[in-house]
Amino acid sequence: MSESYAGKINRKLLKKRRIINAAAGREPADLVLKNAVYVNVFSNELCHADIAVAEGLIVGMGHYSGIVEEDLSGKLLLPGFLDAHIHLESSLVSPTEFVKAVLPHGTTTVITDPHEIANVMGTDGIEYMLQATEKLPVDVRFMLPSCVPATPLDESGALLDYRAIDSFYDHPRVQGLAEMMNFVGIIAGDDQPVEKIVAAQAHHKKIDGHAPDLQGNDLNAYIAAGVYSDHECHDLSDAIAKLERGQFIMIREGTAARNLKALAPLLCDKYSERCMFCTDDKHPSDLLEKGHIDYIVKEAIALGADPITAVKVACHNAARYFLLNNRGAIAPGYLADFVVIDNFENFDVQQVYKRGERMVDHGVLKDFPAPQIEQYLVDRSHSTFHMGTLSASDFTDARPRGIIGMVPGEITTVDAGYSDRIDVEYDVLKIAVVERHKNTRHIGTGFLQGYGLRSGAVATSISHDSHNIIVVGTNEQDMADAANRVAAMGGGIVVWDQGTSQAEVPLAIAGIMSEEPLVTVNEKLEHAKECAFTLGVSRGVDPFMTLSFMALPVIPTLRLTTRGVFDVSQQTYV
Amino acid sequence: MSESYAGKINRKLLKKRRIINAAAGREPADLVLKNAVYVNVFSNELCHADIAVAEGLIVGMGHYSGIVEEDLSGKLLLPGFLDAHIHLESSLVSPTEFVKAVLPHGTTTVITDPHEIANVMGTDGIEYMLQATEKLPVDVRFMLPSCVPATPLDESGALLDYRAIDSFYDHPRVQGLAEMMNFVGIIAGDDQPVEKIVAAQAHHKKIDGHAPDLQGNDLNAYIAAGVYSDHECHDLSDAIAKLERGQFIMIREGTAARNLKALAPLLCDKYSERCMFCTDDKHPSDLLEKGHIDYIVKEAIALGADPITAVKVACHNAARYFLLNNRGAIAPGYLADFVVIDNFENFDVQQVYKRGERMVDHGVLKDFPAPQIEQYLVDRSHSTFHMGTLSASDFTDARPRGIIGMVPGEITTVDAGYSDRIDVEYDVLKIAVVERHKNTRHIGTGFLQGYGLRSGAVATSISHDSHNIIVVGTNEQDMADAANRVAAMGGGIVVWDQGTSQAEVPLAIAGIMSEEPLVTVNEKLEHAKECAFTLGVSRGVDPFMTLSFMALPVIPTLRLTTRGVFDVSQQTYV
Repeated sequence: MSESYAGKINRKLLKKRRIINAAAGREPADLVLKNAVYVNVFSNELCHADIAVAEGLIVGMGHYSGIVEEDLSGKLLLPGFLDAHIHLESSLVSPTEFVKAVLPHGTTTVITDPHEIANVMGTDGIEYMLQATEKLPVDVRFMLPSCVPATPLDESGALLDYRAIDSFYDHPRVQGLAEMMNFVGIIAGDDQPVEKIVAAQAHHKKIDGHAPDLQGNDLNAYIAAGVYSDHECHDLSDAIAKLERGQFIMIREGTAARNLKALAPLLCDKYSERCMFCTDDKHPSDLLEKGHIDYIVKEAIALGADPITAVKVACHNAARYFLLNNRGAIAPGYLADFVVIDNFENFDVQQVYKRGERMVDHGVLKDFPAPQIEQYLVDRSHSTFHMGTLSASDFTDARPRGIIGMVPGEITTVDAGYSDRIDVEYDVLKIAVVERHKNTRHIGTGFLQGYGLRSGAVATSISHDSHNIIVVGTNEQDMADAANRVAAMGGGIVVWDQGTSQAEVPLAIAGIMSEEPLVTVNEKLEHAKECAFTLGVSRGVDPFMTLSFMALPVIPTLRLTTRGVFDVSQQTYV
Repeated sequence: MSESYAGKINRKLLKKRRIINAAAGREPADLVLKNAVYVNVFSNELCHADIAVAEGLIVGMGHYSGIVEEDLSGKLLLPGFLDAHIHLESSLVSPTEFVKAVLPHGTTTVITDPHEIANVMGTDGIEYMLQATEKLPVDVRFMLPSCVPATPLDESGALLDYRAIDSFYDHPRVQGLAEMMNFVGIIAGDDQPVEKIVAAQAHHKKIDGHAPDLQGNDLNAYIAAGVYSDHECHDLSDAIAKLERGQFIMIREGTAARNLKALAPLLCDKYSERCMFCTDDKHPSDLLEKGHIDYIVKEAIALGADPITAVKVACHNAARYFLLNNRGAIAPGYLADFVVIDNFENFDVQQVYKRGERMVDHGVLKDFPAPQIEQYLVDRSHSTFHMGTLSASDFTDARPRGIIGMVPGEITTVDAGYSDRIDVEYDVLKIAVVERHKNTRHIGTGFLQGYGLRSGAVATSISHDSHNIIVVGTNEQDMADAANRVAAMGGGIVVWDQGTSQAEVPLAIAGIMSEEPLVTVNEKLEHAKECAFTLGVSRGVDPFMTLSFMALPVIPTLRLTTRGVFDVSQQTYV
């Protein structure tokens, strides 16, 4: 809609007058939550009042009448929750399906970094996610991916410098620059990452950090460069060192990394003002079984945090950090985003309101339309595999290659020597990364020990951060077949044996997200896992998540790139 | 300077690299404050470290070497202070002279509302103040005056609607819309004031409030309309009612109004995050004798506030509220604005640094250039009296007029009946307001009791909020002479007797600010006061400040306007 400035002021004046009239009690409110006991994040206590809503905003607390009235006696009213940092793609479903999953848990705003899809589709990926989240009943705000590709060792679908992402800062839902993982480059003063910070600051935007265990003067340099937060703290001293230098701390409790227990002591008067909650990655089963930010709040309370502090950290503090001025509190002028729970002990989310509309009632979600995405972006997202058909010979290699040794329960690996052949008896499997964005035919091969597969192959296009195809197998033919099947589906997970696909999880959006509902995706995923276990994969191993980190050349010790096995500790190919 | 976006990024990249290099310790810092014990507003404690500075920013805390090093052993280092709300004009001196007065007290940022000069010069007054504060060593940020004139009863030099001030929001030192005094208009949903709020929000700017004792649903309406702060709270329950509805509370301790003692209980864990300090008005003698924000912090500590909390309220919280992201803390990336004091008890400001430069050392202020102001604005500011020469007959009026009764020690007045003549024996003096902006020849007359003058006349062009000439006298001829002398000076204060000026304080800038240093202005003011006392003005009365509020038709009971004596309680002319 094109609108003159004067027209905009006049339109907003009308809306504002309705708000004022409802607040002053001259007109009935649209909605009144009667007898609400609510968390007041300003006075840090429970208050008791009727809460009046008009035009999607809270207009007053006191005694009010409304066109619709709900009695909240015996319940607790909280502001809607914010996830301060997530990669939506990690849920493996579309943004619409993600919203259906988290809204019933009281999440009303998420800050996403579309890093995964940008590694596949570049700026088209960012635009896709912006369009796919327009006007959803969970507000989806964006931090622009800062590290595409994640490292120069990666062969991703795009290379984004500051100029590539710059125009996105003008989008009203873009809050800043996402986690600057390249802290080494910042501290060294390298042009590319520092330019990105300088440009984000020129747009007066926030810049998130990612710097596990960084300390001392290097930490000073990283923060002085302009990095305002960190979500990688896994112990208290790391968090306090960053907090006392001015960074906001995002306490992360997601699927892959869980730091709440270690960081729960931050939830006190001295520190809590500078803390918020985030999940970073949330996989389907975790979303379905545990929940989202509501789960973190409940756990924090169980760990001894004051409930009002925990709620404030879950809503108010992230809103302040991201300059989302009208959310994260129950007060006049704030968005009518509410969570109704039974009590702090059970923390059972009974109702969720978004902009004054009841979207969730005892688990039942109100329908809402999926956003329209421009056709060229839909087409582009379904055509991200650019590679020829693979044959067994593509994986055949007479020279010895390094063996990546898995560590039970960890995503780190060890150097387990060399091999020149698959040896299923000794659990030495072949592993390969197949470049799939630009038809380079780059295929890196190596060996994997500790996975346990005894027959067939497993392939996936979820492979951080470039999302090439990673495949592990007991023979080259099954590897080729499994990888070809992934490409034919336009992306996904395949368990292959004896010439046929045993289980599949199609991920047709950029090869990393499904178009199906979360429950369906989860069922397919669980079925595929069972198939993988049946084929021998050790029960202690997540058959797909483990593989998805094998090509990320930032985690020690050995990783596999499209150019071969890489020693992260030594920064050399082996 | 006109600069391409790419050029700007490249320039900032160079500067950023210098910051990073100094922070990482690869290059010496510009300045290192060695062995500093400093207030950490993030961890809410005293920390101990070397503080390194480069390019005017703090780059790190730890062990550092610098080109210049200062040993801070035995002292305390604090972030520079912010005054969250002041009318600079109240100091009666130019912005440059004001800065010279407050910088030695540790003030490094002030948020000013140029309401007084805008009432005289309209948007030229705002532009004058912007230019007069450019690059001063105290950062002067602006809130745009929301109520010019203050009431429809006023005859001011300008009438500013939202369109008139709109383009100023693009100025980099404009933070928002200043105190919305017209809370009655907001609650009624009147076009003019509500449009101003809507426009400020459209520019994503802050909106300050002014609503003494407003409560209940009317308070809800005022806040829901979009008013984010209040500085008029004079008791704790008023402040808490506003704070718990989401307003930030500016605890005011200035010359005319002093609320610190009543509001000191807010300086606790539960509430302090939402509080800041302001002065609103600071008159010359008050600035010279008591100080500025340093005085408030010291008093707050004496009243029992935790010193670290008091310091945080004095620097950090206002910076957060006004989205001045890189000030109000000692941490990497923050402005190197520092205050060095001896200890929390004495609170003696020994040194003040602005952007890494030591501007004050034991009371000695470093020279700095006064900003250049465009000639047309200088000319305009010196030509604000548009009126004919007055004669005694202009003040002669046979009809009886109301007597405004002064109340000792208060600025409120009472209705003291009627008179048709001056009666010095009974302390019934004549008082007049002379419109001086638009040559309307509007002169309102009345009588004043309680002032005590026994001979001559006193006139001033400081007359809130329209700054017409207010004159009180024992006879009409001296009144005319005194008012003519004020106009001839281009504004100021005159004590007149027996055909000659006994004392004068010229205020040549818009009739409300002097061009002389604060000490000189104060000396002239004190001399003029003594002259007024010699002529009979009661010692318990401030001879000029008392008069300056006589024409402000918002304070009960009787006030004098250019249209005659007005009963504020009854909202009628008497």
